[in-house]
Amino acid sequence: MPSRPSKRLQTFPNPAPERDYRIHMEIPEFTCLCPMTGQPDFATLVLDYVPERKCVELKSLKLYVWSYRDEGAFHEAVTNRILDDLVAAVKPRKAEVVGDFFVRGGIHTVVVARHP
Amino acid sequence: MPSRPSKRLQTFPNPAPERDYRIHMEIPEFTCLCPMTGQPDFATLVLDYVPERKCVELKSLKLYVWSYRDEGAFHEAVTNRILDDLVAAVKPRKAEVVGDFFVRGGIHTVVVARHP
Amino acid sequence: MPSRPSKRLQTFPNPAPERDYRIHMEIPEFTCLCPMTGQPDFATLVLDYVPERKCVELKSLKLYVWSYRDEGAFHEAVTNRILDDLVAAVKPRKAEVVGDFFVRGGIHTVVVARHP
Amino acid sequence: MPSRPSKRLQTFPNPAPERDYRIHMEIPEFTCLCPMTGQPDFATLVLDYVPERKCVELKSLKLYVWSYRDEGAFHEAVTNRILDDLVAAVKPRKAEVVGDFFVRGGIHTVVVARHP
Amino acid sequence: MPSRPSKRLQTFPNPAPERDYRIHMEIPEFTCLCPMTGQPDFATLVLDYVPERKCVELKSLKLYVWSYRDEGAFHEAVTNRILDDLVAAVKPRKAEVVGDFFVRGGIHTVVVARHP
Amino acid sequence: MPSRPSKRLQTFPNPAPERDYRIHMEIPEFTCLCPMTGQPDFATLVLDYVPERKCVELKSLKLYVWSYRDEGAFHEAVTNRILDDLVAAVKPRKAEVVGDFFVRGGIHTVVVARHP
Amino acid sequence: MPSRPSKRLQTFPNPAPERDYRIHMEIPEFTCLCPMTGQPDFATLVLDYVPERKCVELKSLKLYVWSYRDEGAFHEAVTNRILDDLVAAVKPRKAEVVGDFFVRGGIHTVVVARHP
Amino acid sequence: MPSRPSKRLQTFPNPAPERDYRIHMEIPEFTCLCPMTGQPDFATLVLDYVPERKCVELKSLKLYVWSYRDEGAFHEAVTNRILDDLVAAVKPRKAEVVGDFFVRGGIHTVVVARHP
Amino acid sequence: MPSRPSKRLQTFPNPAPERDYRIHMEIPEFTCLCPMTGQPDFATLVLDYVPERKCVELKSLKLYVWSYRDEGAFHEAVTNRILDDLVAAVKPRKAEVVGDFFVRGGIHTVVVARHP
Amino acid sequence: MPSRPSKRLQTFPNPAPERDYRIHMEIPEFTCLCPMTGQPDFATLVLDYVPERKCVELKSLKLYVWSYRDEGAFHEAVTNRILDDLVAAVKPRKAEVVGDFFVRGGIHTVVVARHP
Repeated sequence: MPSRPSKRLQTFPNPAPERDYRIHMEIPEFTCLCPMTGQPDFATLVLDYVPERKCVELKSLKLYVWSYRDEGAFHEAVTNRILDDLVAAVKPRKAEVVGDFFVRGGIHTVVVARHP
Repeated sequence: MPSRPSKRLQTFPNPAPERDYRIHMEIPEFTCLCPMTGQPDFATLVLDYVPERKCVELKSLKLYVWSYRDEGAFHEAVTNRILDDLVAAVKPRKAEVVGDFFVRGGIHTVVVARHP
Repeated sequence: MPSRPSKRLQTFPNPAPERDYRIHMEIPEFTCLCPMTGQPDFATLVLDYVPERKCVELKSLKLYVWSYRDEGAFHEAVTNRILDDLVAAVKPRKAEVVGDFFVRGGIHTVVVARHP
Repeated sequence: MPSRPSKRLQTFPNPAPERDYRIHMEIPEFTCLCPMTGQPDFATLVLDYVPERKCVELKSLKLYVWSYRDEGAFHEAVTNRILDDLVAAVKPRKAEVVGDFFVRGGIHTVVVARHP
Repeated sequence: MPSRPSKRLQTFPNPAPERDYRIHMEIPEFTCLCPMTGQPDFATLVLDYVPERKCVELKSLKLYVWSYRDEGAFHEAVTNRILDDLVAAVKPRKAEVVGDFFVRGGIHTVVVARHP
Repeated sequence: MPSRPSKRLQTFPNPAPERDYRIHMEIPEFTCLCPMTGQPDFATLVLDYVPERKCVELKSLKLYVWSYRDEGAFHEAVTNRILDDLVAAVKPRKAEVVGDFFVRGGIHTVVVARHP
Repeated sequence: MPSRPSKRLQTFPNPAPERDYRIHMEIPEFTCLCPMTGQPDFATLVLDYVPERKCVELKSLKLYVWSYRDEGAFHEAVTNRILDDLVAAVKPRKAEVVGDFFVRGGIHTVVVARHP
Repeated sequence: MPSRPSKRLQTFPNPAPERDYRIHMEIPEFTCLCPMTGQPDFATLVLDYVPERKCVELKSLKLYVWSYRDEGAFHEAVTNRILDDLVAAVKPRKAEVVGDFFVRGGIHTVVVARHP
Repeated sequence: MPSRPSKRLQTFPNPAPERDYRIHMEIPEFTCLCPMTGQPDFATLVLDYVPERKCVELKSLKLYVWSYRDEGAFHEAVTNRILDDLVAAVKPRKAEVVGDFFVRGGIHTVVVARHP
Repeated sequence: MPSRPSKRLQTFPNPAPERDYRIHMEIPEFTCLCPMTGQPDFATLVLDYVPERKCVELKSLKLYVWSYRDEGAFHEAVTNRILDDLVAAVKPRKAEVVGDFFVRGGIHTVVVARHP
């Protein structure tokens, strides 16, 4: 998958860096394309992280999620890649990404990836 | 954010100081303003603490929550600040504050902060 | 909105034309673009009709729904248009289309259109 | 579809023929085959009828439902056919059959047929 | 089924006979025996009636329901019989009895009988 | 039951007397005593009315509901009496009172009274 | 209550004026002040209308709802006033406004107003 | 709060004293009075304990809960007191009492106390 | 309680004895009699165990549960006895029995017993 | 049970082999036959695993599940066998299979098997 430099996750300084606290975000508006058939896939994403120095800025997260709309992405790969991008952008103490995908072939798939 | 001396959290003596027990409060009527756009934000707050010598007085908590109505406050910052104020007022053995904010930009954010 | 000749709804003969019966379809995978901002919108569509001579073929319906992915469409207009297309393709005795759109600006909109 | 003489619906005399009352049966264990692809389809059937002189015998209904396991059947056709068979067997004052089929191609289909 | 004279439904005078109002009772503790196999059957009963001059007394209703514990009774027959007994005892303006029986042979049966 | 003059329902003028509109109130905090055993009974009350010239004032309603705490009252009688008192106080175009009582003797009773 | 000229509901032309269809909007972010105590009140608003020539523009609706934040308003009056303003702005064939207010004094109030 | 000698919790011998097992009781019918305003408060109590030699007798528990009806009691104090009384009466290996109180001032309070 | 030799739990050899796995069974059709009043009691049983060499045979379990229909049994005693019988019959690595009884005296009781 | 060589589970390379992450799949379309009576059984399968080098390919999983349609299989045996086949095919770091079977004889059985 090519890089998408204009869709970077933006951050802002953590307002409570001395404390371990959790930020949990549910995003029911994720869609990408199946790399094999080109057909649309849909998922609810859940991001959950403990910030260190930086937090994800909400609007850039919306644009980042939107940037997958025309990309081919397998369930397992895309969930891990979103976790990689989140970790690279905010360097959290802990992070988890869940991709909860709509039924395909009568099977409902959920992928759960954690860092570290 | 300026101090609001008249909106202090009041306390009363813990009726069972010899026991570790938990007080859990759900407050669906929190609203503040977005510091960037000035638009209203809404959340359900959940406070959960183990008292040491003092408990939060219910009416002052209502007024304290109400005092955010005209203040600008980011999700992450306001949740941590409420925990700071709760800890300062009641010096609990343990405390947790959850800010469960309404959808913005298609994203539902929940912030969970714990002390200590 | 330009015509999309290759995305026609296909039909098959109604297997029980002598009886008034109802076909109800829920499609949680609808997405289009906001004509003003270009941002993605999401909805669950519900189609409900009483067939006369023809029924909607499932695979062509999937492709038809998919064809909105890159089109700009207002909530009210797109729901009525899908009803128009359904009516034109299957000439049902009765039909209803519901567009249940995701929250925008803190408001959850549902559009319900009936024929005749 | 060939006839299946050994899978007839059995009946017993209505114990309250002087009264209009309703018998409602939910059967989550229906499966048949897709006539085009040969792949299994699954549905929950709901039967609802007002008996005249006869009621459906429970065990024969179980066997009747089971008899579709190896047959090809479209959603719309099979729901109407089960209603036809119910009407032929018990000659009810009123009857309704609902076929609530599992998701195929991201679309959840429900067929609702009534007699008369 | 033999008569059970000691298990009569008792009544008390309707406290508001000039008004059409509805009394609705849910009884999840019904059990009887299958007349063919002798095995226990279970159901939730719902009684709903508009009283004329008399209301059902609660304790006698409990004993009446209990009296089916050792009796054989088909789903359709027992629901109609309970309606008959209710109608005979309180002579209501309107009445409905629902027998919502536990799954047998993978089939969940509900019988709904109304008077008049 | 003796009269309770100090527990009258207060009213205020209907702010939209030219329009038929509905006011619906759910009150989960109703308790009275069983007139036969003296034991406490509990219920959720639902009041629903279309005002003519007057609306029920909220605080007086709270006190009115509270006034049943030490009174003996049968389910059917108390629900009808509350409707009578509501009708006498606000003279509504239409009104309904529902008393949804907690389980007694394994039976869950709901009483629904309407005016006129 | 003073007029708020800058908070007018904006409209756009109905895209399907030849058809009777329904637009349903749920707005969980309503808050105003109690005119007697000055304390905040909270509600979920539901707007439901059949447009004639005009539809409500979403962003102006958000601002309109927001304009109640610092106004005193009784439950019954404010629900009717929002219906009046909706009717004045879009002149719908039919309209309904529901105000579902948070618990006050142990009582949960819902006001339902219809036009015409 | 004065002692209430006639409302003692009764016990019976634990039928399985050699095993650590849990008894869980949900009691939705708790009411007391606010010690400051005299107004009624309502709660659901949950008792959960591991018995040693004795179990709580059900009828005496009902009377014990009933004995709070006319007493003033703060949320935190009454929950701890019920745990104290349970511990004194049955000397359990472990015990927990939860008081889940109805909304007051827009705040829903739950108190959770454990022994030891 | 007398022995019931003909109602023994039957077993079959564990098909995967080398693996620790869990068998969980929910049985909503349990009824017995109250030893003090003779009145019927109802419960949902949950059995959960890790088999060693033997598994419980389904039909014998149904008959075993059925055998309590005419027996007097206290909540705490009967739950522990069913666990004892399960342990004696299948000698599991671990086992748990839950008896979730219907409301009596406004109290909902659940008994949870584990082995070892 | 004979081998079914053409129904092998296919795999693809794990796209994130350096990370411990979880893949969770819910499959509500499982059916097999009872080995004793030949009657159909139904279940929802849940597969949950942490991949090492390989992931299960979705389409082959659908065919694998489908291959049980005409096979006799006991609840406990078939759940363990599916876990064995999953482990053999993908050699996961951890895996769990849950078979949640429909009610038989009034009993709802769930089998939960884990590796290692």
